[in-house]
Amino acid sequence: MASAGRAGVGTNQEDIRRHNLGTVLGHVHRAGRLSRAELTTRMGLNRSTIAGLVAELESLGLAEQAAPTGARLGAGRPSVDVKARSGAYVLAVDLRVDGLTVARVGLGGVIQSRATGPVPVAHDPHAISDSVVELMRLVVKDVEPDSVLVGVGVGVPGIIRAEDGLVRLAPNLDWHDVPFAQILGDRLGAIGTPVLGNDADLGALAEHLRGAGVGVEDLVYLSGEVGVGAGVIVSGHKLEGAGGYAGEIGHMPFHPEGKLCHCGARGCWETEIGADAIAAAIGCPPERVGALGEFLEGVHGASPELRLVGSHLGRGIAGIVNMLNPRVIVLGGYLRPLFPLVQDDVEAQLEVHALTAPRELVRVALPGLGGDSVLHGAAELAFEPLLADPVERLASACHDADAALAS
Amino acid sequence: MASAGRAGVGTNQEDIRRHNLGTVLGHVHRAGRLSRAELTTRMGLNRSTIAGLVAELESLGLAEQAAPTGARLGAGRPSVDVKARSGAYVLAVDLRVDGLTVARVGLGGVIQSRATGPVPVAHDPHAISDSVVELMRLVVKDVEPDSVLVGVGVGVPGIIRAEDGLVRLAPNLDWHDVPFAQILGDRLGAIGTPVLGNDADLGALAEHLRGAGVGVEDLVYLSGEVGVGAGVIVSGHKLEGAGGYAGEIGHMPFHPEGKLCHCGARGCWETEIGADAIAAAIGCPPERVGALGEFLEGVHGASPELRLVGSHLGRGIAGIVNMLNPRVIVLGGYLRPLFPLVQDDVEAQLEVHALTAPRELVRVALPGLGGDSVLHGAAELAFEPLLADPVERLASACHDADAALAS
Repeated sequence: MASAGRAGVGTNQEDIRRHNLGTVLGHVHRAGRLSRAELTTRMGLNRSTIAGLVAELESLGLAEQAAPTGARLGAGRPSVDVKARSGAYVLAVDLRVDGLTVARVGLGGVIQSRATGPVPVAHDPHAISDSVVELMRLVVKDVEPDSVLVGVGVGVPGIIRAEDGLVRLAPNLDWHDVPFAQILGDRLGAIGTPVLGNDADLGALAEHLRGAGVGVEDLVYLSGEVGVGAGVIVSGHKLEGAGGYAGEIGHMPFHPEGKLCHCGARGCWETEIGADAIAAAIGCPPERVGALGEFLEGVHGASPELRLVGSHLGRGIAGIVNMLNPRVIVLGGYLRPLFPLVQDDVEAQLEVHALTAPRELVRVALPGLGGDSVLHGAAELAFEPLLADPVERLASACHDADAALAS
Repeated sequence: MASAGRAGVGTNQEDIRRHNLGTVLGHVHRAGRLSRAELTTRMGLNRSTIAGLVAELESLGLAEQAAPTGARLGAGRPSVDVKARSGAYVLAVDLRVDGLTVARVGLGGVIQSRATGPVPVAHDPHAISDSVVELMRLVVKDVEPDSVLVGVGVGVPGIIRAEDGLVRLAPNLDWHDVPFAQILGDRLGAIGTPVLGNDADLGALAEHLRGAGVGVEDLVYLSGEVGVGAGVIVSGHKLEGAGGYAGEIGHMPFHPEGKLCHCGARGCWETEIGADAIAAAIGCPPERVGALGEFLEGVHGASPELRLVGSHLGRGIAGIVNMLNPRVIVLGGYLRPLFPLVQDDVEAQLEVHALTAPRELVRVALPGLGGDSVLHGAAELAFEPLLADPVERLASACHDADAALAS
């Protein structure tokens, strides 16, 4: 494989240059700000090549150079810093069963503006698209005049077919084979088709790049929403599976005589730790499950029922530890407010059910990005084409999102 | 990443040549025989470079050229075939709780000679090493005079620390932190230290390279021995986890009030589908579990008890399908004779418990290598250094294994 890559070197210098341009931009985007010397080290290219690439990014309006802020290291001239210019932005959408969040996120990963609204109760994808567009109009209102919109990313609580954004199944929205990328894309007009991702996959991506899993190669992000899914990163790469459907850990068998799951099976893990189980344990009425996060924030001290949910959580996490041997398991969604209440029960189960060798290597963590992991992940997904080829993506970017959304 | 690799090109032509030499040898080894034209296509190098590399392999005694056997395609001279020369061989060891198999495997993956013996009952690693060496002496007896031994690979039913072959845990051998690579290496003397691998990982590797998973990027090999483990390949690469311990799927939680597992937990999957559960279902007495494979071969028609084991197998496989979205699940070890007896029950559970999208993509298969998956995997592991750098590995190969084993 490496030999084929090597043999191909030099066949198209322009391709390599554009690829390198995107790679430099990726480093700047993820770090927000870093020195040219650091870029030289990370890229393995020489100083003059890096200087040329940075100058090109500057001329494209994607980066700017600044005097260094860090302490001066060693002799010689201090290296110049390179900063992401946030004038290139994406729109990120976190579509949950209990709410809709839209954010404008600038290059460098800064959330510039956000808006939140309810999900239309019938979960009609067209009605949801309308709501998404209305929230988008709010967040692009005060955008800087020379800013450009370079992509739209959407996190969906379901199984997504990667090639066309078809939602194969979003059980809690009751969606079966809904072409949501196309439906929302039709409403976005000149902005173009959005990229869809599974919510847990996006949470894993964002926590890996900017949160509790920076520098970690093996990470699991557990998304506790109405259902429970996992985003898994192994050896630094997303675990995809044959069709991109991997990570449906909520539907691991957990109890042969357990509760009926909405997927049709009995005793799936999420029947014991999903939103309904948590709600029942804390006395949150079924019709208020949409506000479970707020309910949980108000709980102090765990009842025996909630501690049992914690035990089930710990036992399932032990299975993940045995199966995947991750370095970090990040608890997102409802599991984030739940974990501090039941941490002892989770750890007691880990002690019993996880094998020693993998248990020694793992830590269970709260998201470094708070409740915004999926939102940040959707933004990262939307930035990917820009980072793959900045020149090409900018050529088709949208310069007036407000107008495009109004039409 | 790609840019760094590219920037490094040309810094050391000799390194690249040796790398390419190993890559050519790898293609020849896996195919057994293929045309120079096919090699040219697979490597992405030009014809004269390939001809030079093949000539070097020939001079090293690792390959030979032959008139083509296939139909002549297109115009021009027919391409010459390249065959692996089986004079370079490895010793492969499949250490199971119920027996020990040693094979001499030639370049090209052909088992040239094999010997089988019992595992010393106390499972003392030194005694097991002695038995391994005795079996090795049997299989190297009639080796061709100009053959060279280029590695030893051992499949172990346990959790292996990759860097030094420490067996962290082999529960059914009652091994805890046993330095088996070192213990066996001391007995092997000039032959050198063996490479150890988890049995299920090796089964997955072999089935991926030569068995039911050729051409498949996402594969799970389930090893049903006394315990149950999984070797997992995702996107063409082994799923390692943070410490190389991934795949302990036998210890997924399966039943909160289930049977006590030898790992100390309750209700692990392997308590329902491991050798003891199968033995109980078919009336094989506990002291004969070591011969469970033979017992199963003699069973015709499944009792209700065995069908229940089949259901548990299917339900767990459904969890694997939901979690990992593999293309193929290969059933090795005892699961191989079990599957034909309970296939209907397995498939009925898959229908109920696996989500539609990943279920549509998966097939459950018997090993393409029969009962030899782990043995072939151990051989592949042992060949890896030769395929990484043929020149360097040959320089330290053992030319008289018989003498080395006798000393």
